[in-house]
Amino acid sequence: MSNKKLRFGLPKGSLQDATIEKMAKAGFNISVSSRSYVPYVDDDELEIRLIRAQEISRYVEHGYLDCGITGYDWIQENGSKVHEVGEFLFSKVSRRPARWVLCVPEDSPVKSVKDLQGKRIATEVVNLTKKYLKKNGVQAEVEFSWGATEVKAHELVDAIVEVTETGSSLKANKLRIVDTLLTSTPRLISNHESWKDSWKRKKIETMAMLLRGALEAEAKVGLKMNIARRNLDHLLETLPALRNPTVSNLSQEGWVAVETIIDEYVVRELIPALKNAGAEGIIEYPLNKVVY
Amino acid sequence: MSNKKLRFGLPKGSLQDATIEKMAKAGFNISVSSRSYVPYVDDDELEIRLIRAQEISRYVEHGYLDCGITGYDWIQENGSKVHEVGEFLFSKVSRRPARWVLCVPEDSPVKSVKDLQGKRIATEVVNLTKKYLKKNGVQAEVEFSWGATEVKAHELVDAIVEVTETGSSLKANKLRIVDTLLTSTPRLISNHESWKDSWKRKKIETMAMLLRGALEAEAKVGLKMNIARRNLDHLLETLPALRNPTVSNLSQEGWVAVETIIDEYVVRELIPALKNAGAEGIIEYPLNKVVY
Amino acid sequence: MSNKKLRFGLPKGSLQDATIEKMAKAGFNISVSSRSYVPYVDDDELEIRLIRAQEISRYVEHGYLDCGITGYDWIQENGSKVHEVGEFLFSKVSRRPARWVLCVPEDSPVKSVKDLQGKRIATEVVNLTKKYLKKNGVQAEVEFSWGATEVKAHELVDAIVEVTETGSSLKANKLRIVDTLLTSTPRLISNHESWKDSWKRKKIETMAMLLRGALEAEAKVGLKMNIARRNLDHLLETLPALRNPTVSNLSQEGWVAVETIIDEYVVRELIPALKNAGAEGIIEYPLNKVVY
Amino acid sequence: MSNKKLRFGLPKGSLQDATIEKMAKAGFNISVSSRSYVPYVDDDELEIRLIRAQEISRYVEHGYLDCGITGYDWIQENGSKVHEVGEFLFSKVSRRPARWVLCVPEDSPVKSVKDLQGKRIATEVVNLTKKYLKKNGVQAEVEFSWGATEVKAHELVDAIVEVTETGSSLKANKLRIVDTLLTSTPRLISNHESWKDSWKRKKIETMAMLLRGALEAEAKVGLKMNIARRNLDHLLETLPALRNPTVSNLSQEGWVAVETIIDEYVVRELIPALKNAGAEGIIEYPLNKVVY
Amino acid sequence: MSNKKLRFGLPKGSLQDATIEKMAKAGFNISVSSRSYVPYVDDDELEIRLIRAQEISRYVEHGYLDCGITGYDWIQENGSKVHEVGEFLFSKVSRRPARWVLCVPEDSPVKSVKDLQGKRIATEVVNLTKKYLKKNGVQAEVEFSWGATEVKAHELVDAIVEVTETGSSLKANKLRIVDTLLTSTPRLISNHESWKDSWKRKKIETMAMLLRGALEAEAKVGLKMNIARRNLDHLLETLPALRNPTVSNLSQEGWVAVETIIDEYVVRELIPALKNAGAEGIIEYPLNKVVY
Amino acid sequence: MSNKKLRFGLPKGSLQDATIEKMAKAGFNISVSSRSYVPYVDDDELEIRLIRAQEISRYVEHGYLDCGITGYDWIQENGSKVHEVGEFLFSKVSRRPARWVLCVPEDSPVKSVKDLQGKRIATEVVNLTKKYLKKNGVQAEVEFSWGATEVKAHELVDAIVEVTETGSSLKANKLRIVDTLLTSTPRLISNHESWKDSWKRKKIETMAMLLRGALEAEAKVGLKMNIARRNLDHLLETLPALRNPTVSNLSQEGWVAVETIIDEYVVRELIPALKNAGAEGIIEYPLNKVVY
Repeated sequence: MSNKKLRFGLPKGSLQDATIEKMAKAGFNISVSSRSYVPYVDDDELEIRLIRAQEISRYVEHGYLDCGITGYDWIQENGSKVHEVGEFLFSKVSRRPARWVLCVPEDSPVKSVKDLQGKRIATEVVNLTKKYLKKNGVQAEVEFSWGATEVKAHELVDAIVEVTETGSSLKANKLRIVDTLLTSTPRLISNHESWKDSWKRKKIETMAMLLRGALEAEAKVGLKMNIARRNLDHLLETLPALRNPTVSNLSQEGWVAVETIIDEYVVRELIPALKNAGAEGIIEYPLNKVVY
Repeated sequence: MSNKKLRFGLPKGSLQDATIEKMAKAGFNISVSSRSYVPYVDDDELEIRLIRAQEISRYVEHGYLDCGITGYDWIQENGSKVHEVGEFLFSKVSRRPARWVLCVPEDSPVKSVKDLQGKRIATEVVNLTKKYLKKNGVQAEVEFSWGATEVKAHELVDAIVEVTETGSSLKANKLRIVDTLLTSTPRLISNHESWKDSWKRKKIETMAMLLRGALEAEAKVGLKMNIARRNLDHLLETLPALRNPTVSNLSQEGWVAVETIIDEYVVRELIPALKNAGAEGIIEYPLNKVVY
Repeated sequence: MSNKKLRFGLPKGSLQDATIEKMAKAGFNISVSSRSYVPYVDDDELEIRLIRAQEISRYVEHGYLDCGITGYDWIQENGSKVHEVGEFLFSKVSRRPARWVLCVPEDSPVKSVKDLQGKRIATEVVNLTKKYLKKNGVQAEVEFSWGATEVKAHELVDAIVEVTETGSSLKANKLRIVDTLLTSTPRLISNHESWKDSWKRKKIETMAMLLRGALEAEAKVGLKMNIARRNLDHLLETLPALRNPTVSNLSQEGWVAVETIIDEYVVRELIPALKNAGAEGIIEYPLNKVVY
Repeated sequence: MSNKKLRFGLPKGSLQDATIEKMAKAGFNISVSSRSYVPYVDDDELEIRLIRAQEISRYVEHGYLDCGITGYDWIQENGSKVHEVGEFLFSKVSRRPARWVLCVPEDSPVKSVKDLQGKRIATEVVNLTKKYLKKNGVQAEVEFSWGATEVKAHELVDAIVEVTETGSSLKANKLRIVDTLLTSTPRLISNHESWKDSWKRKKIETMAMLLRGALEAEAKVGLKMNIARRNLDHLLETLPALRNPTVSNLSQEGWVAVETIIDEYVVRELIPALKNAGAEGIIEYPLNKVVY
Repeated sequence: MSNKKLRFGLPKGSLQDATIEKMAKAGFNISVSSRSYVPYVDDDELEIRLIRAQEISRYVEHGYLDCGITGYDWIQENGSKVHEVGEFLFSKVSRRPARWVLCVPEDSPVKSVKDLQGKRIATEVVNLTKKYLKKNGVQAEVEFSWGATEVKAHELVDAIVEVTETGSSLKANKLRIVDTLLTSTPRLISNHESWKDSWKRKKIETMAMLLRGALEAEAKVGLKMNIARRNLDHLLETLPALRNPTVSNLSQEGWVAVETIIDEYVVRELIPALKNAGAEGIIEYPLNKVVY
Repeated sequence: MSNKKLRFGLPKGSLQDATIEKMAKAGFNISVSSRSYVPYVDDDELEIRLIRAQEISRYVEHGYLDCGITGYDWIQENGSKVHEVGEFLFSKVSRRPARWVLCVPEDSPVKSVKDLQGKRIATEVVNLTKKYLKKNGVQAEVEFSWGATEVKAHELVDAIVEVTETGSSLKANKLRIVDTLLTSTPRLISNHESWKDSWKRKKIETMAMLLRGALEAEAKVGLKMNIARRNLDHLLETLPALRNPTVSNLSQEGWVAVETIIDEYVVRELIPALKNAGAEGIIEYPLNKVVY
């Protein structure tokens, strides 16, 4: 057994359970005990640390962590100098990435960032907001918001910069989006020194491959169906989503089995089309990992 | 992107989580926010509304909803004029449908509905109960029960009409079933006008196909095994549950792989029988959808 | 329908949910009602009873239950005379079995069991501890602990005998392991008379097969990949984990599909190796049951 | 010990805990077990039943209960013929009674009930609403709402009749109040026959006195203070809220102690005034019961 | 500040919150942190330990604790040699003490303990049960029950010995009480050596006085009223519950104020009687402590 | 009714429930609805806003709020220019104020702030920490911590500045306190302009008086006792805690009643002393407000 260790930071808090679930799908089972701040992981080469997403890039930069998963937004907000290994999309319901948006009350006279000259803005991302204002040549006061930022836009400040996925929470708070500052997705990042260490780099790359395989698998499904051989070519021509299928003969004369991997989100349009094209016994099955 | 919309009612409350899970299996991911009464769905052609199961048929009938999922019992209780698209079984543990039953305390002298002449009955389904009594030529007072109906049977009224699946709650309340008024399962229903609109009808039919495919898949599994070719015919003859399997040659001489889809509930009897018939390396795997 | 019944004891409490989930995977769906102490199971030949793991072996021995699932530790602690049908590993995170260990505070002078002569030990397994002391020729007072045993080691007694899986709770309580008394895993046990009844024995053996199949499936995954035929032999030689794969021709000339079942815990090393060996389109999929 | 019993109905559900707390303050300690539908009460002359507020008046009218606590609204909705023993205000935060109001969306063209001719209204109080429409000479369809009525006003119906205390929930749902149908407070009601039974009537009256004493005490506090005798008359003249105080001499020459019972809601204005009038050592203390 | 310490054991688990609340009423504020097993108490002379009620007497006997609060039942079950400082009643709803009772199913043929010869009994109090059987000359097998004992009576054993307060849980489980083995109330107990230490004994006695004062106060209330002097003697004669009242003159001629402390449970009969006897302005107020 | 309004900020989050409870004791009943961010208060002259304690002073300074309750620490951290109306102690268990302390791991070589030259410190109070370092002539990197700061001290940084009341959480995390930067208690603060408005100032002062009265009352109790007149002087001399009591004659010859208000924390020593001095019938009762 190796006694080398890779110190890996995962985001604590609202994303914690989802991240641990993805890690399990990638093959790394983590259990968090309320009595210990060091989670258990069934890989002796890993040490897991749970740290707020806002701070992970900072500790990776300083080398306290070899690598970690955090949002692109917080890497930028912290201005952390780290190696970005890859991008990972975690959320299934909405495939839209998180956006940091400039918002004002629905009935505010503010129409563009220019109208904020001399005003006051509350946000959790003070640095990103200041940089954005500077780029737009606007001088305004930016204050750090400890939370519940949406409520502040109505009374306490003139505008806010807040994160949103679907926009429904903004709408519920009667806020209007003026501009988008940044679009963010989760990233796997590495400390620059760790990335130069060949053992660590290989370990990180393997984890990235498995994690990507697990995430790919969440967005994809396996599909099998039977079809008369005479209808096969027409099927494959008209349905390019069925890319590169495995075709095998069935014992029943003149029939073949077709099997492939497709994006889950096309299933709801594909299955009716397959039926129309003559497919029978269509089976959709789940996947754990997809690695091309 | 289409800007047509189908307004779809799902049952709020105790069935809500199960229904949303089934919709997700069908390919429609819904997220309910506590801050908005309109759930998000990842299909721009759908608008989801969560409404009590008791009321859905009424709003479908009036056209406020194009279609919805609700129980046969509430369609009947409301006397709603709607198009029934299909029947769907949601519950896995007990495949028995819900039954509305006439109950009395275990030690009540009431033996049949005839004994209720002039008595008082509490129920959530007042119309169904009145119709039932009329059919049986019995005159009795029927009063609407706001809940906890089972407890009332012992002191407050002479009998109740209550819903049950396994009967265990009735038994725990020491009640005896006198008669069954109605057996109910979930239905997908459509407004008559919406059903005449070809775009809406096609959309509803597609959703019905996918939902049915997801529900079928819950009750079925994939099964693969290896067997010596010489034992194959005997296997297929003696085990008709293995209907229409895919048989393919293995690289090992004289052996074939057999693969099929079967009802999950026969697995516990089938697997021992397969072993006896010489099958090896039996693998059961889960399915997302099954569309014949 | 048979009117024979097998009375089956499952462990109540912390293992209850996990056990019911495994039973469902084996094909036996159980639902526990808060209003009835007899759980519902969708098999008319079974009667389920939920009983504390500590007591199951006693009731199996006396014949109140035909069989049950409990830990090897409690069978030994109770000294129950039962037939052991098989061993089952339930926990996924840590595949390590539960161990009953003799512990003292980190800074205790106690180095071995011999140092406990005349001391006081708290434990939930009084009989196992007494037998262990006797075997080591040590005389010490053993007292039953009703819980929170770890805390007692620091003030109330000189040592404890406690159960642990990963040791992290002991470490959090600043305890040091002196010795291991017993290693325990879940067992399916049967009453000796029930085991002689051919109907019951067959039923128990079938359940054991299905449960084992479900547990096997949790630790395994299906793996499929495409590879150029010219690389196949090299692949199979260098990667013995790919035991006995199914190889089939692809429509693409010179390429084959390879499919097999492997232990999940090797996936994280195997997939990178497969990529290196030229495999493409690697798919990992979940299994419900694996029966050899 | 008497073996007479008074059967007393308390409202189950959202008001249950508050009612049981008030009963305890009145001197009747009730404990509700999840395993029994008959609550325990430490008075052998009482039998408590927990029944939905909507139904209590019906069961009191029919004599299944001797008396009960429910809202004036549900007595009216049910049209129950019962004896009203008294009115009791339970809620402390807002002393405003519950109001059933006719509501429409903020931007609805409906300005008065007259505008609802031929429309559709959803409500939990169907009878009250029909009576109200009739009185106003309006014909509209009234349908029973099983809950979440506020949401329906925007899409499913033209107006709703809903209950509110502070109006904040209506405002959050962007609804506008058109009219008030009924103002409701909790009532203690009795069956007419029970009220004629002298033992039962005396028991009910005693409970009413104690309950009223407990509720009075919630809205009142005791107040003591010291003041120089020469300032006493001025104090009592200018502060009539200090009705009928007890005045006693203090050991300190020229000073008296003043003690009285006042409404809690005047304290926040009274204490500053008392300070200005020369009072010292002002003490406010809580009360359990106040019976004049 | 003294650096002497009294180590005090409080019962962990179901009684924990109630005990801590009583201690706070006695003047000792304890806060339990989930991160530390040593609770904080605002008295530097105390060290609090939370230990299962079943074990406290054992650790007091051995001197690991100076004193503790536990039930008489567990002192007897453990046969602990400790000094009993006093009895304390904690529960308000039901003033009945806990009873350990011998129970059988309602329809069991067992009518008395004699009928248990050769049978099997499950209980948490094995020693008490064995002693009881011996006293009655009955030989039966007694086995330790880890919980859910009530359910076992129906299938797994012939009888149980279980604790009950109101009997309602036994009734819900359809059990019949055959005999009562022991009646138990909470006790404050001390280690014999600690009791001989004058500092510790004084500390324990002070705590006992304050705790008793707090518990007395829970069962009592203060009562004040005004009455015409001419009615005073009649009032005091006819209502002996008003023992030893304080009578003071009111400023209103011919009227006096009467104040006393009474048992809360008589209030519901006393207040109506006081009204009848001419009392006015009756005020009941709560107490923190009552020390005679 | 006045139509002036005072906008009042209360701390959201962990202190929210305690603050609302204190406000209720002061006579201002607030109810927070999950559906509205503006809490309801039963005083038409008040508007309540719930804002994080960290931010309140900032919004008071800018005039968005007229006044608010927050900690001295956050006023200092923000450097807010506000009028401090008064100090209020909220916590009962530990009367110790919150302290911001510099901490290192127990086994760290750091002995004083001087040892942190060139190191890295994590804290939520970046400004306070920088000012403290500057005052001590130490240059170190200070980084904002989003939470779980205690855990960081062991790996991620060299020291932390964290808040503590009892120190027990620091001890559980094996941290050692090196120095105290600031001691903080809750303050009522006002905007400077609002303080100049006479109506607002009077309103704020009245609220401060009532709130102080309620907090005083939490730390105090009323005490009454009877004593023989001949023992009275001795009692009052030896027990100066009984300051300025009310003494009144009892109907029983030679006895007096003594009543006073004392600090609750002396009760546990005072009551035994009173008993020794001959007091009888000692009654302690709770207070709502104490205003001198």
